[in-house]
Amino acid sequence: MKKYLINNAMIVPVDDERSPYFKGDLLVEGERIEKIVERPGVIEPDSDTEIIVGENLIVMPGLVNGHGHTAMTLFRSYADDMPLQEWLEEKIWPIEELLSADDIYWGTLLGIAEMIKGGTTTFTDMYFFMDQVAKAAVESGMKAVLSRGLVGLTDEDEKGLQETEEFINRWHGEERGRINVTIGPHAPYTCPPEYLKKVMALAEKTGRPLQIHLSETRKEVEDSLRQWGFSPPEQLYNMGFFDYPVIAAHCVHLMERDFYLLQEKNVGVIHNPGSNLKLGSGIASAAGMLKEGIRVGLGTDGAASNNNLDMIEEMRLAALISKGASEDPTLIDAAAAMKMATVNGAEILGLSETGSLREGYKADLVGLRCDRPHLIPMHDPVAHLVYAAQAADVELVIVDGQILLEKGELKTLDEEKIKAEAEKCAFRLREGIKKKR
Amino acid sequence: MKKYLINNAMIVPVDDERSPYFKGDLLVEGERIEKIVERPGVIEPDSDTEIIVGENLIVMPGLVNGHGHTAMTLFRSYADDMPLQEWLEEKIWPIEELLSADDIYWGTLLGIAEMIKGGTTTFTDMYFFMDQVAKAAVESGMKAVLSRGLVGLTDEDEKGLQETEEFINRWHGEERGRINVTIGPHAPYTCPPEYLKKVMALAEKTGRPLQIHLSETRKEVEDSLRQWGFSPPEQLYNMGFFDYPVIAAHCVHLMERDFYLLQEKNVGVIHNPGSNLKLGSGIASAAGMLKEGIRVGLGTDGAASNNNLDMIEEMRLAALISKGASEDPTLIDAAAAMKMATVNGAEILGLSETGSLREGYKADLVGLRCDRPHLIPMHDPVAHLVYAAQAADVELVIVDGQILLEKGELKTLDEEKIKAEAEKCAFRLREGIKKKR
Repeated sequence: MKKYLINNAMIVPVDDERSPYFKGDLLVEGERIEKIVERPGVIEPDSDTEIIVGENLIVMPGLVNGHGHTAMTLFRSYADDMPLQEWLEEKIWPIEELLSADDIYWGTLLGIAEMIKGGTTTFTDMYFFMDQVAKAAVESGMKAVLSRGLVGLTDEDEKGLQETEEFINRWHGEERGRINVTIGPHAPYTCPPEYLKKVMALAEKTGRPLQIHLSETRKEVEDSLRQWGFSPPEQLYNMGFFDYPVIAAHCVHLMERDFYLLQEKNVGVIHNPGSNLKLGSGIASAAGMLKEGIRVGLGTDGAASNNNLDMIEEMRLAALISKGASEDPTLIDAAAAMKMATVNGAEILGLSETGSLREGYKADLVGLRCDRPHLIPMHDPVAHLVYAAQAADVELVIVDGQILLEKGELKTLDEEKIKAEAEKCAFRLREGIKKKR
Repeated sequence: MKKYLINNAMIVPVDDERSPYFKGDLLVEGERIEKIVERPGVIEPDSDTEIIVGENLIVMPGLVNGHGHTAMTLFRSYADDMPLQEWLEEKIWPIEELLSADDIYWGTLLGIAEMIKGGTTTFTDMYFFMDQVAKAAVESGMKAVLSRGLVGLTDEDEKGLQETEEFINRWHGEERGRINVTIGPHAPYTCPPEYLKKVMALAEKTGRPLQIHLSETRKEVEDSLRQWGFSPPEQLYNMGFFDYPVIAAHCVHLMERDFYLLQEKNVGVIHNPGSNLKLGSGIASAAGMLKEGIRVGLGTDGAASNNNLDMIEEMRLAALISKGASEDPTLIDAAAAMKMATVNGAEILGLSETGSLREGYKADLVGLRCDRPHLIPMHDPVAHLVYAAQAADVELVIVDGQILLEKGELKTLDEEKIKAEAEKCAFRLREGIKKKR
């Protein structure tokens, strides 16, 4: 069994039972964290233990990206600064129609490469050609929470449910639990009640959680109120959807009653500050949700609306925009932002034994170089991580005890090949759009 | 005369007379941009021309940081997430009182090192021990716009005016115009009208622009209305302050009339989105100001309230929060954000021949690696720079034709020494605070 000792590092455990940070040692044995000592140089390595010098590293739990459409990296900076409907109808949907299984594979790997290099150890995906996504996740070593996106507007859409069930049977729990599958109804406005009932029946049958977009835009809420007389969360609550474990992305435009419903039913919310800002959806009240006792994690959403998959940036945005929009600098402090990006996300996604650095937990952890000018002096590593660090500071990434990034180099993936193939896919897609016109 | 040819780069000139981006060559001769060709491989290098391979670089004008207190890097992550008055009175002011000339020197160099590594070529500073700041700027090769901070609340404060005049005489125009001095009255609420009249007399005498904090917080505006019956911009307008060139930082809380006054008097506004968010000051209407025809640049403010000096992040924040707060994704598009961070800033600071890549202009430019996963594929380099890039992508920085950063390495400064000395200063300051208690 492989053993790694990270010695003399600045450890940020994100564990309420420990100090927020301390200099110490951390021992990984097999897929788990075997030992954490709050004093450096205490753990004696065996002869078969590989030493990772922690001297200039901040070591923290791996970041958990709670919402995304990974292969959309192929559309990064393809269309920006446009009104939402125009952006979707004239740019994103036409090019999405051209996506092949091959594109999804390379686009997902590109996103995974970017995420690993930015310290993300778990990613969440709702898209299509999901076998390709699962294959990419397996190859990379990343932890994944995958769902085939479901839309219930045509008769064709029955197929999605069947494919979801097959996808669960084929992939859920694979790689010793590293690959997880959930059920992905896109949104209340694309999945009518009759369809959602079938989705719920599948949740009942398989026991898998539901992922859904919820109250992302003001228009969505207004349409729902007009059509049903209820907000989207009320609508889901009323039909019993929240009686299943639910991962709700966005929740930008919540009405007062919605807060109570989400809290009552323990719905997990994934806040996507970058995407919500960029698409002009608005500023979710993450601080309000946390205050109400709602569990809130963080996500990047797809690269077409972000335009990167940088969870450190999302942490920072979550903290900054809550303060700025409410004119209250005490909202979402650094520790709260860190929790959203790690332990909260893991819990919401239904992943156990990850999200904190804790003895016996899976070794999902990240090391960031902290000796660069923008992280000097070292007054407070937690504030550094949230307010000053950048993705490129990440040098070390371990998932389930396997090293995915070492000294900034990808160990499980061929970065050059991925970049070249993804660039080729993007070129082909652009050419395809030209031909369509 | 030193010559550099950057060949086959993706050039983003930020110049309305050219395309937003193109593959091409750029020749630097002495301190100026000699030639830009919108086709790669056209410029033939002489035998004495050093070639810089542009293959994987996006080349853009150097970023212009329009507002800051550079040595406050020493307080990075020292105190965060606190109510503003408590943060100032219990944390920042007590430790600022302990700052020595030596601290200012090393703290400024630390900030300069960070800024160069993040693609900033011009920085603005309002602080004290300004000879140390000028010295650091000279040594680094960066372009600087410096002012001694002036407060007019005690008799002692006359000294500040005299020191400012001496500082102008000693430093303004040094290093062939690379060092610039302005006059720095801190804010209307710390500089009463009688004092500001003396400040204006000095502006009249020296011809130097004025830097001031303006309408940063809601409280500042409310106090001004209560005390004077006017908003801070009205107050300054009425006393003729805006008849001089003015660089106004923040302008978060403008009343409707203020927009017209700033536009009428051509006041340059420096928007500091990161700092305004983090301190809970609010969200300035940068889009509203631009629409009104007000010139708007960008700044980081000090690292105590940011907590980095990353102008790429400020560009991104400026674009994102305008869209998010107004629920309009078309506000501040990528090109507008780029202008704010470059050409607008240069113009507001009164610097000529910089801020764009243009033949005959000073060679103040930056090259960013664009072959990392988070910048693949290459659909649009301008959107990439604003929405996806990070400070660590910067590999090349040239100011007035001198290379300050090459392959990510500082060429004019000793990074290790600066980091060690700055860490020592920070340690001493923390110990000083403990003794005070």
